[in-house]
Amino acid sequence: MPDFYFVTSNRGKYEEVRLIFEERGLELGLIEESYPEIQSESLRDIARFSAKYCAEKFNRDVLVEDSGLFIRALRGFPGPYSSYILKTISLEGILKLMEGVKDRSAYFQACVGFCSPGKEPEIFSGYVEGRISEEIRGEGGFGYDPIFLYGDRTFAEMSKEEKNKVSHRRKAFESFLNSRNTSSKGRII
Amino acid sequence: MPDFYFVTSNRGKYEEVRLIFEERGLELGLIEESYPEIQSESLRDIARFSAKYCAEKFNRDVLVEDSGLFIRALRGFPGPYSSYILKTISLEGILKLMEGVKDRSAYFQACVGFCSPGKEPEIFSGYVEGRISEEIRGEGGFGYDPIFLYGDRTFAEMSKEEKNKVSHRRKAFESFLNSRNTSSKGRII
Repeated sequence: MPDFYFVTSNRGKYEEVRLIFEERGLELGLIEESYPEIQSESLRDIARFSAKYCAEKFNRDVLVEDSGLFIRALRGFPGPYSSYILKTISLEGILKLMEGVKDRSAYFQACVGFCSPGKEPEIFSGYVEGRISEEIRGEGGFGYDPIFLYGDRTFAEMSKEEKNKVSHRRKAFESFLNSRNTSSKGRII
Repeated sequence: MPDFYFVTSNRGKYEEVRLIFEERGLELGLIEESYPEIQSESLRDIARFSAKYCAEKFNRDVLVEDSGLFIRALRGFPGPYSSYILKTISLEGILKLMEGVKDRSAYFQACVGFCSPGKEPEIFSGYVEGRISEEIRGEGGFGYDPIFLYGDRTFAEMSKEEKNKVSHRRKAFESFLNSRNTSSKGRII
């Protein structure tokens, strides 16, 4: 029986997170379902609502995760609506909006929500800082990775392993795991 | 006692809708509250969720409304996230995205949700077709009005009365009112 359950309809995301749990000797179960996400400028509020919803719906302890890219010069855009905005205006749209813009700083944020039925959710955040590139670069990754510079390479120019080592998602899940008092070697202590 | 209740935290929107009901001799009550809206590409689904949520929360028949601007060349962007996107990239951002774009056609959509406690919501849509202007024009209106061309004027160059006569919001609420068998002169018949 798994130690924790992660609700997501995204298999790739599940695989990435499963490995983080495995490093600590923990088994992560998958509930392969989608769920309603609310509109909010705050990923924390979105994760809070989803975690609560899923805990009641599946009547067990659950984990959910939401993430987004926040570009400072664009007041946080695309932020919580990163998926929709990528699908509509695409990476080219983002680069067009950034034409002639000096401050290219941006960050990815991930928020993990953990909730037990009948209880209030707990939220854990992770961030990674970077810059928006001048052009699309690299073949790896997904989403905004080809325009997100981490040092002098985009996330799409790094291997999956390199990226996953520094990712906002890893940081958010590690923050959750640390709160559970899990050792790096084994089961919950 | 009002004939219907409209849930919104936007007083200006309430006033606009109140007048449409008044034309038919109907009184519209205001429940001045905000409520969670889900993330979806479909305004219908957003209105459906909100109407259901509010009917249960306030334990009475309620109306809610959501609207957005859909630009065809941008695959519907900014769509359901029109408010957030306006606040972050502003009208200038939209015009930048539309630089050099030939197909400038766009439409406003409004969706009204009506729901009674314990029942399924009913949804009513209204549309108005237009084009995205080459520059910001006009002092009236709000939101995307200064870049939305209706004929050869933007919504912000028209009087409130002119705009409200042809608006997507009016069409959606009239569609609702017609479904209730209200006469143009008086109470529900």
